[in-house]
Amino acid sequence: MASVVHTPHKSARTSHKGQQTKLAIVEAALVLAKRVGLDGLTIGSLADMMHMSKSGVFAHFGSREDLQVSVVWEYHERFRAEVFDPAMAHERGLPRLRTLFENWVHHINAEIAEGCLFTSGAVQFETQEGPVREALSESVSTWLNALRKAVQQSVNLGHLRQDCDAALMAFKIHGLVLSLHYQYRFLKAPEAVQWAQQGFDQLVRAYAAPNTGA
Amino acid sequence: MASVVHTPHKSARTSHKGQQTKLAIVEAALVLAKRVGLDGLTIGSLADMMHMSKSGVFAHFGSREDLQVSVVWEYHERFRAEVFDPAMAHERGLPRLRTLFENWVHHINAEIAEGCLFTSGAVQFETQEGPVREALSESVSTWLNALRKAVQQSVNLGHLRQDCDAALMAFKIHGLVLSLHYQYRFLKAPEAVQWAQQGFDQLVRAYAAPNTGA
Repeated sequence: MASVVHTPHKSARTSHKGQQTKLAIVEAALVLAKRVGLDGLTIGSLADMMHMSKSGVFAHFGSREDLQVSVVWEYHERFRAEVFDPAMAHERGLPRLRTLFENWVHHINAEIAEGCLFTSGAVQFETQEGPVREALSESVSTWLNALRKAVQQSVNLGHLRQDCDAALMAFKIHGLVLSLHYQYRFLKAPEAVQWAQQGFDQLVRAYAAPNTGA
Repeated sequence: MASVVHTPHKSARTSHKGQQTKLAIVEAALVLAKRVGLDGLTIGSLADMMHMSKSGVFAHFGSREDLQVSVVWEYHERFRAEVFDPAMAHERGLPRLRTLFENWVHHINAEIAEGCLFTSGAVQFETQEGPVREALSESVSTWLNALRKAVQQSVNLGHLRQDCDAALMAFKIHGLVLSLHYQYRFLKAPEAVQWAQQGFDQLVRAYAAPNTGA
């Protein structure tokens, strides 16, 4: 899943320059989308922000929807780089699961001043079928599946008990993440960070296999 | 917290009729807000929907913001009637806490086709300070405090163990509710209903006091 999609074939040089411009547009669009929402993103406001003409932006994206989809995948790649990849550097099982959760919490804290596309996008595209909703849903599902897999590996390696249902555990951890986002960002309750971390520790302790001391 | 606010003083008869019209407008506005979001609600679209003139709607609400705030409190009152009040009819402690959670899950399921103002509103008014955000935040906080109180009563009555932290437990339960909403409504995963219920049962079992058999 590349962060910039649908690049037309051109000469190598034009293509490289065009690719750079396109990337710059997507990066600016992501900044804008975090502020005004994916659904508030327009070619016009983006062109203003970049001091480009609307047709200049249009040349790189066939439509507003194409642009929104590219923004979703750019956000996806950044989430991968910030949350997922560093966790993969840790040992399989509980160390990886714990890092995944901690990075996720860190990612939410870092975004407090900006906005989370996974949360706002889910609301904005809840009932709007189409490619933007599909991209968002596919992206979030990728990370929820990664979370579930990290739980399952913890069970397989004996870090968590055999009766730990990976799908249910991932659902609960997702709940902690969402509750943190809601209570910290909307209700302005900073103690939510501590609750999320304690909640995760208690979940892990509740399913700790007797031989791990986790 | 009345569901219809800022009613001007008039003769009893006019006031009664005016009150009825105002209530009808708020009810229609709530239907519309669930569909297009609180932030998408305009006096114009509402006037169209009700076959009224814009000035006719304006006569009852000084501003769009007034209308939005009234819609929040109408939603609040319905949440009270559907989720909170029936739980209060149950015995204090675990029976009341369980009913509160079950009614909340039922409320989310019933809203699948419509939309939840507490979720969409939190996103739409996340960074928009003002009376609409305040009303939303006050309403949600009321229900989270009710949840926390129901947990605390369960502890005080010995239904849950003394080491159960009511604030943390309420945070986790809120997480189950948010995860249910996200995964059922946005990711279209109907198994989320079962996960939410199992998650609650496991939470309660983890803190069950030895003498209750809960």
